[in-house]
Amino acid sequence: MSPQRRSGLGTNQEAIRRHNLGTVLRHVHSAGEMSRAELTAIMGLNRSTIAGLVGELESLGISERTTPVEGARQGAGRPSAGVRIAEDGPYVIAVDLGVDRAVVARVGLGGRILQRAQAPVHSDGEAWQVGAAVAALIRTVVADAPAASALVGIGISVPGLVRRNDGLIRLAPNLEWHDVSFGGIVLAALGLDVPVSLANDADLGALAEHTRGAGVGTDELIYISGNVGVGAGIITGGHRLEGAGGYAGEVGHLRFDPAGRPCHCGNRGCWETEVGAHAIAAAIQCPPDKVAQLDEVLDSFGKPSPALRATGTALGQGLASLVNMFNPQTVILGGYLRSLYLLVGAEVDAGLAERALPAPLESVTLALPGLGSDSSLLGAAEIALEPLFIDPVAALGTALEDVRSRLAG
Amino acid sequence: MSPQRRSGLGTNQEAIRRHNLGTVLRHVHSAGEMSRAELTAIMGLNRSTIAGLVGELESLGISERTTPVEGARQGAGRPSAGVRIAEDGPYVIAVDLGVDRAVVARVGLGGRILQRAQAPVHSDGEAWQVGAAVAALIRTVVADAPAASALVGIGISVPGLVRRNDGLIRLAPNLEWHDVSFGGIVLAALGLDVPVSLANDADLGALAEHTRGAGVGTDELIYISGNVGVGAGIITGGHRLEGAGGYAGEVGHLRFDPAGRPCHCGNRGCWETEVGAHAIAAAIQCPPDKVAQLDEVLDSFGKPSPALRATGTALGQGLASLVNMFNPQTVILGGYLRSLYLLVGAEVDAGLAERALPAPLESVTLALPGLGSDSSLLGAAEIALEPLFIDPVAALGTALEDVRSRLAG
Repeated sequence: MSPQRRSGLGTNQEAIRRHNLGTVLRHVHSAGEMSRAELTAIMGLNRSTIAGLVGELESLGISERTTPVEGARQGAGRPSAGVRIAEDGPYVIAVDLGVDRAVVARVGLGGRILQRAQAPVHSDGEAWQVGAAVAALIRTVVADAPAASALVGIGISVPGLVRRNDGLIRLAPNLEWHDVSFGGIVLAALGLDVPVSLANDADLGALAEHTRGAGVGTDELIYISGNVGVGAGIITGGHRLEGAGGYAGEVGHLRFDPAGRPCHCGNRGCWETEVGAHAIAAAIQCPPDKVAQLDEVLDSFGKPSPALRATGTALGQGLASLVNMFNPQTVILGGYLRSLYLLVGAEVDAGLAERALPAPLESVTLALPGLGSDSSLLGAAEIALEPLFIDPVAALGTALEDVRSRLAG
Repeated sequence: MSPQRRSGLGTNQEAIRRHNLGTVLRHVHSAGEMSRAELTAIMGLNRSTIAGLVGELESLGISERTTPVEGARQGAGRPSAGVRIAEDGPYVIAVDLGVDRAVVARVGLGGRILQRAQAPVHSDGEAWQVGAAVAALIRTVVADAPAASALVGIGISVPGLVRRNDGLIRLAPNLEWHDVSFGGIVLAALGLDVPVSLANDADLGALAEHTRGAGVGTDELIYISGNVGVGAGIITGGHRLEGAGGYAGEVGHLRFDPAGRPCHCGNRGCWETEVGAHAIAAAIQCPPDKVAQLDEVLDSFGKPSPALRATGTALGQGLASLVNMFNPQTVILGGYLRSLYLLVGAEVDAGLAERALPAPLESVTLALPGLGSDSSLLGAAEIALEPLFIDPVAALGTALEDVRSRLAG
């Protein structure tokens, strides 16, 4: 959201230029590669303005020219030159704090994962221990970054509630963290001063799937993440629904059966007690030490039991509340919910159709993630890259080159 | 939302000028009156640019100058002139299609209700009959409009599901309407060609409360309307959450008690079967012919019965789901829910606190409407006025002067 729009500001020339620069980059980042003709059409600016903006992105080392695309000739004149993300351009670090492991990746514009590493995380680990482990993984993935490439920032996906204004982890139930400044902990362990952004894993899954996954082409989508709890990331009007504090999307505690099972939140019969990982594990007699890999366990399953079918129905019935409330176009089922849908999709569809109102039911399609298990990781990259799309010049101004040497010193 | 932002377009000079013109007007419309100094500060443009924009709004007959405000002197130079909405400027027609009556008003910029009229609506009335009744009310309220004032458009608040792209009423349960082009029916009954916009009554209540009611100052709010069913209008990031088809906010059918009472939607135990008008009427033994005035009946109530207290608890518990899902800053209780809260507010608060997660619970305040029973009516005016805030010149270009004479002919 441009700052001008958010505050009802007017616009001036320099701000327009930088906004346009960031918008061009956002298009190329989403598409991976575009011709100048496509950019001219999609932005509604004239060709020489586009040429100037593209030229500036090239001089900043962010994009590079591609050879004219065959068949892109438009009438008289040269075929349209292409724009793509530069090799060795700016990059970010993405961190996916999972249930029992942390995944860290060096990610470039275009959502290119350049290098990745992972390590186990112990659920009773202190925050500083996890921070140290994450910092070690970060050192690993920046080791081979070209010295001229600049680190723009770090994005961290969190399985819990993140306060929007300062990134404080209010609650991460699986890690038993309350009010943890994990961003600051990671920076302290690294010894680097670089922007760090944190957000909920379902929110980031929705963001990545919207940018380059199963949610491309719609501005109304929900990504439901099944890790251990159940959370939702909501995109509406093309933007993340964050809420006043950044806590929107806590669908796991929707009221499902007031006479139902006890929930860790203190109430009974929350939706999570029917479709959460522990509920599904119980339905298939999965041993507790395998719950973190529930998706793999389900993938190896043959014929679903009646208990699993009932879980599918409960998933569909709960989704109906979300469909009635948000009227999405696409609902993406991530984590172990993807695996569950592959097994009992008919029950899920039936539960949804039974409880959703006709008009919103017409609009909606259930889908599986387009980015596999990388949705939240790539979403973390997206939020770290975002300053480049607001103002590339300013974002590069604070970026760090040759991080490897800085970390060694 | 500016069209440039929605589509990732670049911006050019003329588009900027018109956008700025509309933005200045939006500020003055919301505030009612502003000094040029305030406009300069809030829009981040220089004083001569603001003077030019204000001058153009004056020449268009939309705004007028006020005498300098006492005490507004800022250093050397003249005190800052003021801008306010012009008398006899452009106006809209707002229609609030209620359960048993239609309210129609002529509304000016600044949300000023200039004239209003109402008539009963029979719930088994055919759409064309209701349209004719509404057209008659419109003729009444334009009769005294100054000939030089131009009608910009008509906004209609609907107790039901309205399709976003074309305003078709998909479902209005109380009227038993399915797929009704009510906008077209009203234009046909009037014999006028003017833009007409329709939207759900809860959505419009949220919009009006956000603009000038109890939701001013927050961009995350929910307006829950109690008419007969229960619906929600959601504002997030400062904009209406509409959903793919425009059907977002159907909270009445949230799952409350799977073993509960039958609902008209075909399921059991929807939230509406606990807190809808018929449920409350049953709890207080209100006769069926008074259900449409349930708010007045509740207002005359003394001590709440145990059944009414239980209803309050159910209201709070259901609100907790909305608080967990949307993380709003303000939840406004409209219609008879306002009256209910005044009676059993302690139970509502307790039900909410019992079921909402701590972090989103901290952010939220329950509030009563600032606009009384006019929330949806003023929201209808807002959507009809919206083209003036996008491009005032274009909107005036299609507006109709001297409507009274046109209707007489």
